Amino acid sequence: MRDARVAVIGATGAVGSVTMRILRERGFENVRAFASARSAGSVLADGTVVEEAMPEALAAGEIDIALFSVGTEASGKLVPHAVRGGAVAIDKSAAFRLEPGIPLVVPEVNPGRALEHDGILANPNCCAIPLTCTLKPLHDAAGLVRVRVATYQSVSGAGAQAMERLRNEPQEQHDLRMDWSFDGVEFEEESKLRDETKKILELPDLPLQATCVRVPVMVGHAEAVWIETEDELTPEQAHELLGSAPSVRLEDFPSPGKAAGGDEVLVGRIRRDPTVEHGLALFLAGDNLRKGAALNAIQILELVAERQRAAA
Amino acid sequence: MRDARVAVIGATGAVGSVTMRILRERGFENVRAFASARSAGSVLADGTVVEEAMPEALAAGEIDIALFSVGTEASGKLVPHAVRGGAVAIDKSAAFRLEPGIPLVVPEVNPGRALEHDGILANPNCCAIPLTCTLKPLHDAAGLVRVRVATYQSVSGAGAQAMERLRNEPQEQHDLRMDWSFDGVEFEEESKLRDETKKILELPDLPLQATCVRVPVMVGHAEAVWIETEDELTPEQAHELLGSAPSVRLEDFPSPGKAAGGDEVLVGRIRRDPTVEHGLALFLAGDNLRKGAALNAIQILELVAERQRAAA
Repeated sequence: MRDARVAVIGATGAVGSVTMRILRERGFENVRAFASARSAGSVLADGTVVEEAMPEALAAGEIDIALFSVGTEASGKLVPHAVRGGAVAIDKSAAFRLEPGIPLVVPEVNPGRALEHDGILANPNCCAIPLTCTLKPLHDAAGLVRVRVATYQSVSGAGAQAMERLRNEPQEQHDLRMDWSFDGVEFEEESKLRDETKKILELPDLPLQATCVRVPVMVGHAEAVWIETEDELTPEQAHELLGSAPSVRLEDFPSPGKAAGGDEVLVGRIRRDPTVEHGLALFLAGDNLRKGAALNAIQILELVAERQRAAA
Repeated sequence: MRDARVAVIGATGAVGSVTMRILRERGFENVRAFASARSAGSVLADGTVVEEAMPEALAAGEIDIALFSVGTEASGKLVPHAVRGGAVAIDKSAAFRLEPGIPLVVPEVNPGRALEHDGILANPNCCAIPLTCTLKPLHDAAGLVRVRVATYQSVSGAGAQAMERLRNEPQEQHDLRMDWSFDGVEFEEESKLRDETKKILELPDLPLQATCVRVPVMVGHAEAVWIETEDELTPEQAHELLGSAPSVRLEDFPSPGKAAGGDEVLVGRIRRDPTVEHGLALFLAGDNLRKGAALNAIQILELVAERQRAAA
């Protein structure tokens, strides 16, 4: 599996550079890096020369799996070329996530969907991944009735330039921001989080509302979550379920700083919501560049590559 | 009223220095500054020489109204001396807020309570003040059933030293923090926000849960709020009610940066909570040092001073 021919498109961006690093950590030996014309020809820290992400190069039949970490518009244009050339595309953008028939995969939650693809798999939003990892075992045990989420999202979710801006911003000017496109009622980030969570959990009717906020933190997203369940679920039971959930680690006070650089979703502050009968409140934090993006894509890649090898 | 003999105890702290500034803005002419022995003798920007907050000085009968912005422990010790000397004490700490018979006042919400004091009035928690300003008109119109709040609190709420720490912290190290005392289930800040909101609104049975989080912002607290009401309340109706509520200003996307330095609570993002029948979500931001602390105390002072003058 580690000899699959992998291409990372958008390799110089915030997510792409973490993708290159994790591929190396996990022993992939055959990795090419692509980016826009502006970055083509530059040399990455590991010596890889960046190629230009031209349609012909992606369609040339020399890629088994292509990991896209470019914007939604660029993904819409480039992904079909990679697929045309025989690659399986795993796309981080919002371009394909809600398309019927295109799997939207969190390997801990709905791994079977990864095998149902038709050339394209979508990697979910950076807040939806840790949220579904957390909600899945609770839903399986007690049935989710409704979910409310307030997010604390780091600037790295907005890309490398936003990180550079924060690095140069005097502390006196730090502010909360809502830097997503707005439809008059909610931010695109809020509808993504709702709709993708429903698709991943396969709960199309789950009532969920999110308030999304950008905070002046470099890496790591956190979420304050309220859930209500059909059946009684005590904080102790939730604690036990989450303590053995894959990719979840219990932590008294999760924070972006504690989650950054790690592979796990930190979940804590699990307590009763005393305002309703079957309610729980909890707080989670995850590395949005790793489990929230690059790592999740690579876990999908591993599912796909294993299948390709088994089929070969 | 502007010639009342006012004392600010804790005048060199984060809230105290804003208190001194607002007193000057509002034309108070007879203001003395007190602080701990460490700061006594220092000279403030406006030329005021800081006196040591000794019990005898506070009890000497030369103060009409004493504004305390010291810690809960220091307030518990010093406030009785000022009252003994004939002053009315308005205390910012948590020492007296939940004491039966001691008014906890937000002048826009329960001004009548300010006249029922017995020498001590309490100034609420910095998150409870903007929250109650926002909830009061909504409750009067439709009856609150339950409230959930996730906070985004700036470091100035933790005092001048915390501001200095953030000023010197590299952006890469910024993190969310939960720097309050913890009882095993919730932070003191969360129980304060709940219990004080219930006392101010005079709704002892209101179910309310808060998740409190410190964010790396210098000044200004924000809150993501979900409410449910007895009667139907549309976002349009809530918009109209809040548009004419005292000390509230509608703002599409409230943020600490927009609120800082101003006297108003910014409220926006008012929308249906589609997960329940009579639910609304909204987002608010206020200057925690001004309306969340110093300004609210001075508004209480003005109510008290007016009464003292009328009685004289």
